Amino acid sequence: MLKIKHLLGLKGVCKEDIVKILDTADDYYKILNSENKVSNSLQGKTVVNLFYENSTRTRISFELAQKRLSANPLNFTVSGSSVSKGETLKDTVQNIEAMNIDMIVVRHSASGVPGFLTQFSKATIINAGDGFNEHPTQALLDIMTIRQKLGRLEGVNVAIIGDILHSRVARSNVWGMKTLGMNLTLCGPTTLLPQHPDLLGVKITTNINEAIENADVVMLLRLQLERQDSGLFPSVREYRQLFGLDTEKLSRMKENAIIMHPGPVNRSVEIASEVADGDRSVILPQVTCGVAARMAVLSLLGNKES
Amino acid sequence: MLKIKHLLGLKGVCKEDIVKILDTADDYYKILNSENKVSNSLQGKTVVNLFYENSTRTRISFELAQKRLSANPLNFTVSGSSVSKGETLKDTVQNIEAMNIDMIVVRHSASGVPGFLTQFSKATIINAGDGFNEHPTQALLDIMTIRQKLGRLEGVNVAIIGDILHSRVARSNVWGMKTLGMNLTLCGPTTLLPQHPDLLGVKITTNINEAIENADVVMLLRLQLERQDSGLFPSVREYRQLFGLDTEKLSRMKENAIIMHPGPVNRSVEIASEVADGDRSVILPQVTCGVAARMAVLSLLGNKES
Amino acid sequence: MLKIKHLLGLKGVCKEDIVKILDTADDYYKILNSENKVSNSLQGKTVVNLFYENSTRTRISFELAQKRLSANPLNFTVSGSSVSKGETLKDTVQNIEAMNIDMIVVRHSASGVPGFLTQFSKATIINAGDGFNEHPTQALLDIMTIRQKLGRLEGVNVAIIGDILHSRVARSNVWGMKTLGMNLTLCGPTTLLPQHPDLLGVKITTNINEAIENADVVMLLRLQLERQDSGLFPSVREYRQLFGLDTEKLSRMKENAIIMHPGPVNRSVEIASEVADGDRSVILPQVTCGVAARMAVLSLLGNKES
Repeated sequence: MLKIKHLLGLKGVCKEDIVKILDTADDYYKILNSENKVSNSLQGKTVVNLFYENSTRTRISFELAQKRLSANPLNFTVSGSSVSKGETLKDTVQNIEAMNIDMIVVRHSASGVPGFLTQFSKATIINAGDGFNEHPTQALLDIMTIRQKLGRLEGVNVAIIGDILHSRVARSNVWGMKTLGMNLTLCGPTTLLPQHPDLLGVKITTNINEAIENADVVMLLRLQLERQDSGLFPSVREYRQLFGLDTEKLSRMKENAIIMHPGPVNRSVEIASEVADGDRSVILPQVTCGVAARMAVLSLLGNKES
Repeated sequence: MLKIKHLLGLKGVCKEDIVKILDTADDYYKILNSENKVSNSLQGKTVVNLFYENSTRTRISFELAQKRLSANPLNFTVSGSSVSKGETLKDTVQNIEAMNIDMIVVRHSASGVPGFLTQFSKATIINAGDGFNEHPTQALLDIMTIRQKLGRLEGVNVAIIGDILHSRVARSNVWGMKTLGMNLTLCGPTTLLPQHPDLLGVKITTNINEAIENADVVMLLRLQLERQDSGLFPSVREYRQLFGLDTEKLSRMKENAIIMHPGPVNRSVEIASEVADGDRSVILPQVTCGVAARMAVLSLLGNKES
Repeated sequence: MLKIKHLLGLKGVCKEDIVKILDTADDYYKILNSENKVSNSLQGKTVVNLFYENSTRTRISFELAQKRLSANPLNFTVSGSSVSKGETLKDTVQNIEAMNIDMIVVRHSASGVPGFLTQFSKATIINAGDGFNEHPTQALLDIMTIRQKLGRLEGVNVAIIGDILHSRVARSNVWGMKTLGMNLTLCGPTTLLPQHPDLLGVKITTNINEAIENADVVMLLRLQLERQDSGLFPSVREYRQLFGLDTEKLSRMKENAIIMHPGPVNRSVEIASEVADGDRSVILPQVTCGVAARMAVLSLLGNKES
């Protein structure tokens, strides 16, 4: 059983809880690779997937995790909902909860929405991404993948490259990895780096070679191409030259370092195709771990008595 | 077992059928509040949710009810359907039914669609709202909530406030409540009241104080804000002053009277926030009863032999 | 067990495999008409329905087939997916597959997509319609319906009327029916007929009377009304007069010949309403066979060891 009651982010989650989730996820990973992929852990429980932002892999990954735990998933997306009738978020959630829902998985463009929901909902809340704040299950699956591939976490050097400033994936990884004793370097154009890096207790650099040379893990972030219009970086071409991971930069990495990306990938932007598909890439294993990590979170938070 | 084969509306449904549904719903209500919320009543049955109008709570409430009865729900919404290819409603339904579907839950903007479907469909039809006609499961959950909260139905005074003319919720409640011996007062602006009230056998007034002073139940209807453009009421501000339930009007209600709303609520229009969230409001219990009432309807109509 | 590992089309599928699918479909047809419609054949298997084109009946028919085999269906449609974020088809499918998916049912506007997916996916691929190429489960349900209604396949004369050139339904039927020793006549306006008919080994005519006079089966295709703008036929009115099946043309058909249509029907265009609803029409039985045929394909391809 976990100390946390909801998964709002990895900030403030203790090491024991994270390790417990990772261990449980490893168990589910084995079940997923066996013939019978179904557990009865959440039999009779209802989970609402409340997605105010579009998402393929995250929604499907959660829904699959729920089905494999024998829970009942209910999908609630913005279009086709009464949100367009002007109902407040609080009313929507209270109405959902009044139907005896056990858990709510929520994605929203505004930071803090999952925490706000816990104030008036008895259901367990799981954050599936909120604004620029956190995306904790993504970080958990990232860390799980690293532990599976490298066999350890403490002291592992991780470089995260890209638009750190707007990345909830980066923020969740920073919080979780620091708790686990991992060393972080954040790298990107000055305009896409956090302004108060000292608060985070991580290394910051605009020089990708400096970031990757000692890294055991290089994690590329998706470049939001629409940000080009806002003047935050000069051009996709220049971004690719300076920060895109190609075979030339890869040759300067440590021999056993692995390459990660939360997807969806912009091929030939933040990562070259031959790198994304190469033998150092663990992008697809990350997806596989994602289902197991979400099963672990759902199961541990959903079974309060176990 | 019920005398009706389909639930098209509460008009013409006998008292015994309504009471049987309410009693069954109370049983399901207990199951929903127990640890294992699942019944096997509709195991192996397939229910199509055929929604030609958007709806959050009604569709989710029906889908949840179906899952908790172990039925297979299939969702069929307008967008993403061959309706846009110009297929007739009759062809769509006959095609759905040809797949050995057991029940169809239908919502449509045209009054009478559910009854039309029964002419050529062997499947059981349940009306989830048709035009300005009826919304019988909403009325059943309303009546169920009243019985739970007040302990009786016969002789209970109900005031329904708002756009009575365009409200299928009001129409279903009028038919059901009259059958059960309840007393109804309908209240709203003249332009939003039915033109032949005597046909309905209920009291009509444009004076909200007169409507609420003897009421055991005050039910506010959602104001369709877009009707303002059609000149049916002068302004939202004036509507709120005359017909919106605020603390001042609430103070003139009977001490134990309860406040209902079918949702979604326009806060500060037909109901003040402090009233919607106050201890007289049973808006959220209505939502909880909704799942149980729909389980009762689905189960009683879906198990023809039991 | 089948010789094929995926169902990409009926081109090249051997007679034994087709007959095995038809026999299995007949077995499921009986189950669908019994009280308990559920089989455990695909218990614990996950099937993704990956639809890049809108479809009512095909998607619902597949989803229902999956549920009746106790599989877990996951729906993935274009809108609401990361396709709009510019992800490649290959990346989307590899990501889906990395979640330990067993089968993918794919519909796409581009011919060849299902075969392309088999190059890098370990999941079993089923084509639910690709461009102008094939729609094999439609042809299987058509052939199943013919066998149920006529009691035989070899030597049966089939006339397919309409826009042959753009019809994946026609193409799949041609491949499957030729393999089974059935005789085909394709009929339509010159502009909507294939240019190299000799390659197909079937009779071609622009004269509908010639096509239908010896037919045991007359299959009308849906006219894509939007093609009128491209100048491929002069007007809907003229098309209906020349190629629409009305009672007058029906009177020249053989006495026991049946009438088929893959749906959705354009009433009063390719088929008159009284013909579509008449006693020679097997349009609705085709829909019923559709679920059984898809159950057979899913079950035979999904259980590799049985």
